[in-house]
Amino acid sequence: MTDTPNTPLLDKVNFPADLRQLKESDLRKFADELRQEVISAVSVTGGHLGAGLGVVELTTAIHYVFNTPQDRLIWDVGHQCYPHKIITGRRDRIRTLRQGGGLSGFTKRSESEYDPFGAAHSSTSISAALGFAVANKMAGKPGKAIAVIGDGAMSAGMAYEAMNNAAAAGNRLVVILNDNDMSIAPPVGGLSGYLARLVSSSEYLGIRKIASKLTAKLSRRVHNATAKAEEYARGMAMGGTLFEELGFYYVGPIDGHNLEQLIPVLENVRDNAEGPVLIHAVTQKGKGYAPAEAADDKYHGVAKFDVISGKQDKGPGGGPPAYQNVFGETLANLADSDPRICAITAAMPSGTGVDKFAAAHPDRSFDVGIAEQHAVTFAAGLAAQGMRPFAAIYSTFLQRAYDQVVHDVAIQNLPVRFAIDRAGLVGADGSTHAGSFDITYLATLPNMVVMSPSDEAELVHMTYTAAEYDDGPIALRYPRGNGTGAALPEIPQKLTIGKGRIVREGKKVAILSLGTRLAEAMKAADILDAKGLSTTVADMRFAKPLDEALIRQLMTSHDVVVTVEEAAIGGLGAHILTLASDLGLTDAGLKIRTLRLPDMFQEHDNPQKQYDEAGLNAPQIVDTVLKALRHNSAGVEEAGVRA
Amino acid sequence: MTDTPNTPLLDKVNFPADLRQLKESDLRKFADELRQEVISAVSVTGGHLGAGLGVVELTTAIHYVFNTPQDRLIWDVGHQCYPHKIITGRRDRIRTLRQGGGLSGFTKRSESEYDPFGAAHSSTSISAALGFAVANKMAGKPGKAIAVIGDGAMSAGMAYEAMNNAAAAGNRLVVILNDNDMSIAPPVGGLSGYLARLVSSSEYLGIRKIASKLTAKLSRRVHNATAKAEEYARGMAMGGTLFEELGFYYVGPIDGHNLEQLIPVLENVRDNAEGPVLIHAVTQKGKGYAPAEAADDKYHGVAKFDVISGKQDKGPGGGPPAYQNVFGETLANLADSDPRICAITAAMPSGTGVDKFAAAHPDRSFDVGIAEQHAVTFAAGLAAQGMRPFAAIYSTFLQRAYDQVVHDVAIQNLPVRFAIDRAGLVGADGSTHAGSFDITYLATLPNMVVMSPSDEAELVHMTYTAAEYDDGPIALRYPRGNGTGAALPEIPQKLTIGKGRIVREGKKVAILSLGTRLAEAMKAADILDAKGLSTTVADMRFAKPLDEALIRQLMTSHDVVVTVEEAAIGGLGAHILTLASDLGLTDAGLKIRTLRLPDMFQEHDNPQKQYDEAGLNAPQIVDTVLKALRHNSAGVEEAGVRA
Repeated sequence: MTDTPNTPLLDKVNFPADLRQLKESDLRKFADELRQEVISAVSVTGGHLGAGLGVVELTTAIHYVFNTPQDRLIWDVGHQCYPHKIITGRRDRIRTLRQGGGLSGFTKRSESEYDPFGAAHSSTSISAALGFAVANKMAGKPGKAIAVIGDGAMSAGMAYEAMNNAAAAGNRLVVILNDNDMSIAPPVGGLSGYLARLVSSSEYLGIRKIASKLTAKLSRRVHNATAKAEEYARGMAMGGTLFEELGFYYVGPIDGHNLEQLIPVLENVRDNAEGPVLIHAVTQKGKGYAPAEAADDKYHGVAKFDVISGKQDKGPGGGPPAYQNVFGETLANLADSDPRICAITAAMPSGTGVDKFAAAHPDRSFDVGIAEQHAVTFAAGLAAQGMRPFAAIYSTFLQRAYDQVVHDVAIQNLPVRFAIDRAGLVGADGSTHAGSFDITYLATLPNMVVMSPSDEAELVHMTYTAAEYDDGPIALRYPRGNGTGAALPEIPQKLTIGKGRIVREGKKVAILSLGTRLAEAMKAADILDAKGLSTTVADMRFAKPLDEALIRQLMTSHDVVVTVEEAAIGGLGAHILTLASDLGLTDAGLKIRTLRLPDMFQEHDNPQKQYDEAGLNAPQIVDTVLKALRHNSAGVEEAGVRA
Repeated sequence: MTDTPNTPLLDKVNFPADLRQLKESDLRKFADELRQEVISAVSVTGGHLGAGLGVVELTTAIHYVFNTPQDRLIWDVGHQCYPHKIITGRRDRIRTLRQGGGLSGFTKRSESEYDPFGAAHSSTSISAALGFAVANKMAGKPGKAIAVIGDGAMSAGMAYEAMNNAAAAGNRLVVILNDNDMSIAPPVGGLSGYLARLVSSSEYLGIRKIASKLTAKLSRRVHNATAKAEEYARGMAMGGTLFEELGFYYVGPIDGHNLEQLIPVLENVRDNAEGPVLIHAVTQKGKGYAPAEAADDKYHGVAKFDVISGKQDKGPGGGPPAYQNVFGETLANLADSDPRICAITAAMPSGTGVDKFAAAHPDRSFDVGIAEQHAVTFAAGLAAQGMRPFAAIYSTFLQRAYDQVVHDVAIQNLPVRFAIDRAGLVGADGSTHAGSFDITYLATLPNMVVMSPSDEAELVHMTYTAAEYDDGPIALRYPRGNGTGAALPEIPQKLTIGKGRIVREGKKVAILSLGTRLAEAMKAADILDAKGLSTTVADMRFAKPLDEALIRQLMTSHDVVVTVEEAAIGGLGAHILTLASDLGLTDAGLKIRTLRLPDMFQEHDNPQKQYDEAGLNAPQIVDTVLKALRHNSAGVEEAGVRA
């Protein structure tokens, strides 16, 4: 079912200015059409669905009431932005979402002036909105800033840091708390309990009636002091003291799907706020699409699907398991006989495979919410008290906890195990989710061990190796997606720290690979052998500590050495070059090349194209070797192959 | 005045077990003696004073009531730990504080089992305490965890993340909020206003009377349900809803210097808590030492001083200005004619020199509290709206905001200026404050410009260069301490991005230096010249982008190339090696060596000794060159110098 829906009102709206021409009484129908368009588009592209469906009315109301793009609208995380994209000039490309060359699945500054701040990691919106609001205030320019942030994102420290500073914006800052009681996983922590109490309070249960009276009275044209006082009193009575204490005027909870509530409240806030306002809107993820509403995950992220049935096109199925699941299941098995093993996730239980662990060992599994900083230092405390904690965090999100890795773990040499998923390129999620920097930012730290498996069997060994390693911090980084099909070992082996392995013996060329690019290195070796260039391939296993003996051996016995890693500059290649120069191995001449991720943030695309762009596929490895061989001592490329 | 005070009670106490032998009625006198010992010790060592004086009674009461070290006591930040060190087996070394080989100025695991978790960065204590508490809970072992955290530290997001997860610890977690209304700088933000309202409330004003009744009634032996209910009700009545909403049982505010209040409250919490408890204790920084109480900074950090007069030994004075002040004054001057320039500090206005800027441009200066994550994304928002923000953050603290640097700034290529102080080694503050990793973690990022001045005149030029650079993010990193005495330029120059400069011409050896090690490079060149090894010295200025033309020129015209930087592996040296191998410059042989910080966390010591240990002084640069020259093509060091 890829028929486009019938959307007469939506068809008139290319930009918010068009929306503002509609009668308020038409907005309900407009929102329904917008919702149908979102469902239709995502049914052909796949992507984030539930979050967008939950904010159709919010999207409509905000653009109707506020003067976007002069008023700056910032969607936290950004995965709820598809309806916003449709009504801000991008409807004609909405069916290219997440495709190479198409629209990003997140907000993106380069796409539209209606995206003043890109996002994809959570909880940044209030800080950014404060920046916009304060800049306008300083410059004496018009323009408010509106941040829309989910309840899950509120568990991150930076949201709190920003709220604590909200006063700087005066009345130019509006925060809309989009409370759907569910971000990606079920909500955790004290804040979520607090919000639940607010929403379940008797005051809120009565609000649906009160609200209709209030909104009738508070039309945008009748704003006298009494009405305003009543509005303020309502906020106080409803609760929200937590936000009030941090300096916000709290309004809510209100029904985030009821335009007759939303529009007057937003207008009132727009016109009458005297300081920063937090509007607590309760919404339903997946709203208005029955299969999404019925699903446990509310269709948070979906493949292409059939609109009528909701059935997703999950592909052929079968095939090798995802790395995350190999990790989670291995860890669960190891924990059967080791009561010290525990696992921590920051709101990504299924993405990290910690759900597999939690199913087997619920008492030793901790979902701390979107709180990577806490996750890492909590793990440090566990390790200091004798546990064997695995902090399972995506590479890109571990950046959130870098100081905790340095200060709480590495300096104290505590044996925290970092299980780092989504290391390297990630395809459709693009640059914000790529795990490009972890080898660099971890391997520079004293005490840290950094390893990377070349396939899922190696991941089993490395998970076991990490569990058994009590001498300090250790990280294992592995990619998004499915394994290579390697047979999983019955009994995991404990690897020797800092030792690589030669997987193919040759004489002229040595390829030193880290991680799953090993398969391409092997293909490259086949091609080179066929050209008469006998090629050694080593799976380095460790970026730190390096296998000095192996590196020395390979460098002193081959004409060309090429390193391959799916990571940015400063990682394996840089460490090997540094070691080689420390040892003087290149003093008398040696052709070394390092293949790595390019010095750019690569756009979303299918993984193969991303690897091609990065130059990390077999043909490019071969090309690098051939060019190096043609390079003469004067630094000029020669015509023929020397070998 | 270095006479040691008369301390008969303290003399009996080497460990907390001894303290617990004292009568409760002796504790007041004991605390007074402990305070005098702290004052006496710091008068000869210098260090953090005000914070320790503020927690003398807390230290006494906690160790008296709780069963340390089995109960885990974690001091947030750690700069208030001197009294704790004195009564946990380290009194005999307390006058070695912050000296090479002496006690650390912070808590440190390797020093004592009474320091279960080291600290020096703020706001980690609750997360760590949760780890200890949960580990004991899982293992079924006894032992609570007590975190003592200041109100300033509460502004950091990770403290909030941890509080949001407190429930996991059950009643094993006790958080003591040490509210002195002043961390290092005056407090900022909504939370601090909230705490001020709590403390100034009529309930608190009455509490001094109520407390005496309560504590009389709540002796440790009389805990019936009524008394407990009353205690609980008191907490609720006092306020503290913010903490209550996050899942804590709130007790307070109580007088943190009144042992007759502290002891029974702690005993009550120890014996009767049913879940995590937050005790809000109000203290006075510098308490009990008149000169500290009278000082604006409460003697937060002091030089050696005279105990009677309080007069600090500030050294001879005069001399070159500190880098931080050159930065702050330069930025203030630039802002006179550029209304887009603004400055952000995370609770370090004087340490970063932002105080100089704030004095001239208060409306464009922002102290966001201990909230580096927010600081960076706030700056990103300002930049996106056309301002020219400088985020002035110590190198080590910028680690707290690494994801914001990547995700909010670099990916969006926003022109945020990072003014990074305390880059490199920092002397007495030791490894936790060293800024070792910034070049590595920043230069790996696409779009990022990384520069480092070789003296204070260069810092002026680079500050101006950063202000004028609107094409993307740009970082300037400079060390702790005073400049070299270089004349400050009347008119700052805009440097060409990615271009270095040759400061000394030679023929055989090239030293490529980044930052203030240039002075040692020049000394090394003198020595080498005297040995007949004509030496070129380049001030690279930029770690990214690299000056490819200059590097190519130097590498193709010298026998030995040595890079020098005050940073860990992965920085300038690694980038130069990578470029050289990309270009094939070493294919035919070239002796390159990279000098950098060693792969270890260096202990606190005086800076010169730290540089010696790191191998970054002139003699070691010379030695590296000589060894490289003796290194023959077989990778073996020869007897004579080739040159």
